[in-house]
Amino acid sequence: MELILEKKYVQARRLMEEMNEVDLAEFLEEIDDNASMVLIFRLLPKELAADVFAYLEHDFQQKIVEGITDRELAGIMDELFLDDTVDFIEEMPASIVKRVLKNTDKETRQQINQLLMYPEDSAGSLMTTEFMQVDDEWTVARAIREIRRQSEDKESISVLYVTDRTRRLEGVISLREVLVANDEDIIRDLMTTDVICATTYQDQAEVAEDFKKYDMISLPVVDNEKRLVGIITIDDIVDVIEEETTEDIHRMAAMQAPDDTYLLTSPFSIVKKRFMWLIILMILSILTGLIIAYYEDALSANVLLATFIPMLMSTGGNSGNQASVSLIRSITLGEVEFSDIGRVIWKEFRVSLMVGVAMAIVCFGMVSLIYRQVLVSAAVAITLFVVVVAAKLVGSALPMVATKLRLDPALMASPLITTIIDIIALFIYFNVATRILGV
Amino acid sequence: MELILEKKYVQARRLMEEMNEVDLAEFLEEIDDNASMVLIFRLLPKELAADVFAYLEHDFQQKIVEGITDRELAGIMDELFLDDTVDFIEEMPASIVKRVLKNTDKETRQQINQLLMYPEDSAGSLMTTEFMQVDDEWTVARAIREIRRQSEDKESISVLYVTDRTRRLEGVISLREVLVANDEDIIRDLMTTDVICATTYQDQAEVAEDFKKYDMISLPVVDNEKRLVGIITIDDIVDVIEEETTEDIHRMAAMQAPDDTYLLTSPFSIVKKRFMWLIILMILSILTGLIIAYYEDALSANVLLATFIPMLMSTGGNSGNQASVSLIRSITLGEVEFSDIGRVIWKEFRVSLMVGVAMAIVCFGMVSLIYRQVLVSAAVAITLFVVVVAAKLVGSALPMVATKLRLDPALMASPLITTIIDIIALFIYFNVATRILGV
Repeated sequence: MELILEKKYVQARRLMEEMNEVDLAEFLEEIDDNASMVLIFRLLPKELAADVFAYLEHDFQQKIVEGITDRELAGIMDELFLDDTVDFIEEMPASIVKRVLKNTDKETRQQINQLLMYPEDSAGSLMTTEFMQVDDEWTVARAIREIRRQSEDKESISVLYVTDRTRRLEGVISLREVLVANDEDIIRDLMTTDVICATTYQDQAEVAEDFKKYDMISLPVVDNEKRLVGIITIDDIVDVIEEETTEDIHRMAAMQAPDDTYLLTSPFSIVKKRFMWLIILMILSILTGLIIAYYEDALSANVLLATFIPMLMSTGGNSGNQASVSLIRSITLGEVEFSDIGRVIWKEFRVSLMVGVAMAIVCFGMVSLIYRQVLVSAAVAITLFVVVVAAKLVGSALPMVATKLRLDPALMASPLITTIIDIIALFIYFNVATRILGV
Repeated sequence: MELILEKKYVQARRLMEEMNEVDLAEFLEEIDDNASMVLIFRLLPKELAADVFAYLEHDFQQKIVEGITDRELAGIMDELFLDDTVDFIEEMPASIVKRVLKNTDKETRQQINQLLMYPEDSAGSLMTTEFMQVDDEWTVARAIREIRRQSEDKESISVLYVTDRTRRLEGVISLREVLVANDEDIIRDLMTTDVICATTYQDQAEVAEDFKKYDMISLPVVDNEKRLVGIITIDDIVDVIEEETTEDIHRMAAMQAPDDTYLLTSPFSIVKKRFMWLIILMILSILTGLIIAYYEDALSANVLLATFIPMLMSTGGNSGNQASVSLIRSITLGEVEFSDIGRVIWKEFRVSLMVGVAMAIVCFGMVSLIYRQVLVSAAVAITLFVVVVAAKLVGSALPMVATKLRLDPALMASPLITTIIDIIALFIYFNVATRILGV
């Protein structure tokens, strides 16, 4: 940075060439002054510039495109991998998209337009068309020659995709297998024909599942006629996994998933993501209050009863929440499915008996110590036991039922289950209390 | 399966050779009868058998080891990648470990013992020692020759690791770069020297962060003297990411993370993971009840006030929960750090004003419609507004403060924050209500 301020451009450039592209992107984003940022970017050699560009946030990409010449832009577009180009174009305003497309060659432009057509979250939108394709009739020697010639433009060459004359995917072969084979062997005899592949319109979450299940680093994407159209690489899948987890975690807290990072999201869009569930749950809990209103007489007779409402509700909520979160995560990881519902409920039942008895004893001890009313303490402790058992059963059953109904189990998480358990808890409490206390 | 029952072993073997190893492992795990399962496994050719073995659950691995000869065992151990061998040995009883080690050659045995010494969750325990190492003085032609000769035993050959005579890591070079270079070029002149690497005792979560940040598919691991001792591959990192997410999600629901899949965990170990937080939170909420007991007179004067306690507490909890979960996730993804605390709180403040006003209006409308008491409705609505604002601020501030205190922000999630908000909500409620109603 100092070198640049002192206009020692040659030294600055040499220093930057030694740096990692991700670190360079971070460095550029930390420069407050846009003109200097663009100036430094322009010092980078073409190939490194493209690598750094791919790692910049969208607003910085836009600033750079606005600050460079058409010729420089064309150079970067030429070096950029196609999936990164598409990611970038999707976020730019129309004027910039136009300028970008104008500065790419005709073939690239067609491919970009093709990729832009796939719906967001589909395998097609994740893939790159820069894969290493070999002919099933080639010899190993010819394949190695082609790889050495073409590999510079390819995003991943660890796996080669074997197609027939009509571009239909016939099999895969790892570069390693090609390298250890004899020069005169024919690719067709070496390749694996049992290929795991995705289709262009398949959901990205499903594709990520396959990556995890089969421990893959790239996956071919085919169209309806089984023609190979692209590949998806593991680095994009790691992002998909993170995205899906973020979505799940937000759903579990009764929110819609964010579209952007927290700091870049405006307060109003945060409100939009959070408001709907909050108001639904509030209305439900105003209705929950009707249960208390119904038992007003019992409450007037012994106002102390109100003291334990928060404890019973929150302990019930926490117990149910623990069960539902355990199960939602197991369902997400594919460890538990609907057919296991019997085993799950039996397990949670035993868990809840152990937890419920222990908690009820502690609760009875504490409440009778503080308030010195044995009957009230007994009513509270008995209610607590029943609430814990009910909460664990509801908390474990609902996510399972959700999978059967093809709903996302994450929707069944804490806030919704808590509200249901609140209703159950109040109902049990007043029934037990009125009976024991005779009010 | 039918082929095997009819003892058509040759056909069965041919059919299985065409299958993917992950699918074969699933198929074996679905066979109820252990003897048939082992029999079918023994039909597999040695190399495929090792691949399938690596994907089996630990209890199936144990059954197979118990059912095969020493010679077969030695064959599988020979083919298995070292990191998979170590994973497997870590889960086996001592008698099996002994037999396994007896059936590996001396060099492998030493490497296994070395890898077993690294603590769980460290980079050392994740790595494999089967990487492709090249000498910095070699020419491209010599490197390609070595790769073709050695690559069969290596787990990943897309990146080659360049070391000097003392095995010190000098740089990395991708196989692609080697392939496009001229035969007589020297590796040292082509390699990248700015290498991202891990140290053996580094935490696996940190290593996973580097993988995501730099979009890598493998990462070298060095010891204290910068000597290259192993590599970590992306397939293991995907598992680490899943594991860390599971841990976070469980912590957010006030549980310890599970050691095993849900169905394999005994009810008693589930209880152990869940009980501690549940009882702490219960004790806290019994103490929360003391606030209500303190305002017993106000409550006796207007028992209707108790009706709104559940609604105020759960709406407060949900609002705070939304904020804390958003922030915990952003912190985990590295989008937000402690220095952003001012921006975060200002943003949540604006969000809470919008949400709070809207909710208070709806609440006032509903409550006055149902109970037809204007003053009570006003007290409830005003409290609700204050609670929502307070909940969002507490919910967003606590995870930020946790990072400053070097605590896991996930510990600050819903259950703990909810309990704090319960206390705040009750306190505000009774203060507002006694003032407005004059009781």
